[in-house]
Amino acid sequence: MRISELAARSGVPVATIKYYLRERLLPPGSLTSATQASYDDAHVERLRLIRALVDSAGLSIAQTRQVLQSVDSPPESVHDLLGVAAEAVSRPVAPGHSHERVHELMTRWGWRIDTKDCTAHASLAEALNALDSAGFELPEAALEDYRTHMEQIAEREVANVPTDSPESAVRYVALGTVLIEPVLLALRRMAQQEASVRRFSPQP
Amino acid sequence: MRISELAARSGVPVATIKYYLRERLLPPGSLTSATQASYDDAHVERLRLIRALVDSAGLSIAQTRQVLQSVDSPPESVHDLLGVAAEAVSRPVAPGHSHERVHELMTRWGWRIDTKDCTAHASLAEALNALDSAGFELPEAALEDYRTHMEQIAEREVANVPTDSPESAVRYVALGTVLIEPVLLALRRMAQQEASVRRFSPQP
Repeated sequence: MRISELAARSGVPVATIKYYLRERLLPPGSLTSATQASYDDAHVERLRLIRALVDSAGLSIAQTRQVLQSVDSPPESVHDLLGVAAEAVSRPVAPGHSHERVHELMTRWGWRIDTKDCTAHASLAEALNALDSAGFELPEAALEDYRTHMEQIAEREVANVPTDSPESAVRYVALGTVLIEPVLLALRRMAQQEASVRRFSPQP
Repeated sequence: MRISELAARSGVPVATIKYYLRERLLPPGSLTSATQASYDDAHVERLRLIRALVDSAGLSIAQTRQVLQSVDSPPESVHDLLGVAAEAVSRPVAPGHSHERVHELMTRWGWRIDTKDCTAHASLAEALNALDSAGFELPEAALEDYRTHMEQIAEREVANVPTDSPESAVRYVALGTVLIEPVLLALRRMAQQEASVRRFSPQP
């Protein structure tokens, strides 16, 4: 198909497609003349993934290129492929928070978290630090309770990762990580309202 | 105590205390001379709450004043008091997302969410909408699973709200809502890593 049809089918404007081509996010079509190229279904699929990463997951062009490279030359283990997607969508965290408590928790819980990139450790360390600074005491039992729930949630999510293609696995991880977060937070706040009604305003 | 001692005991600089006094967040001390006032433990307590709301929960001065007013003249029901704190820390949400699906969910789940302020509805509607736009299918069973976990988390959190004073209840709700969120999200991402190791890189 021509670029105009690719635009129509993918819903991505021609100018944007050309930008993705220049940025080497989208592989070139096959040349049919000196000025025209032809695109196929793989381009539609790829555009869908690019939009998911750029628009929905908020990745930069450079990050998107990096994720797409691992989709095109997937590492041997699915875990490593998912790691590339997960790392790309993680927020940068200010360094300097002590990770000791987090390392201790990981050991106690038996969680095997990649320590060469410490983003996940740093996020949790930062979050626990903010609680401390605010003088908000989080009892050990409450933290364990949060852990148990998140463990069960993650277990299910990882079990549902599609494994039919690297594209769909990466798309699922990037979108699932980023877009489910606001769902969880909104549900928690609403559940707190309902729990507060139940506890403090008993129906007559 | 003098303002200098109040500053020392609370860790809040004198200039900032004076700012809070001008903004009527902190009640004036009792005048001991034309130019000096005396402060007491209630001022230390109040400063602690102000810092929690402003620094940790990120409230504006106007929002903080509003929350403090309900601490000083608490509504009859604890639920209403907690609602003031919860509403103050909720993020503004772009209007225009359809809430129909959310209303339907609330009815099905039997959640009694205050509909006069629709912030919570809007947040969930926006989050579900973002999933739809990205073409990320969230099966009903997965949403129910998230709901169950958030319900259990909220149940426990609300059960732990301190009820000894309006100050401590409001502080707990504002801080707990805002500062626990990054803890939950960091735990989920780490738990995903661990679940991915378990599933895709079985130990020999």
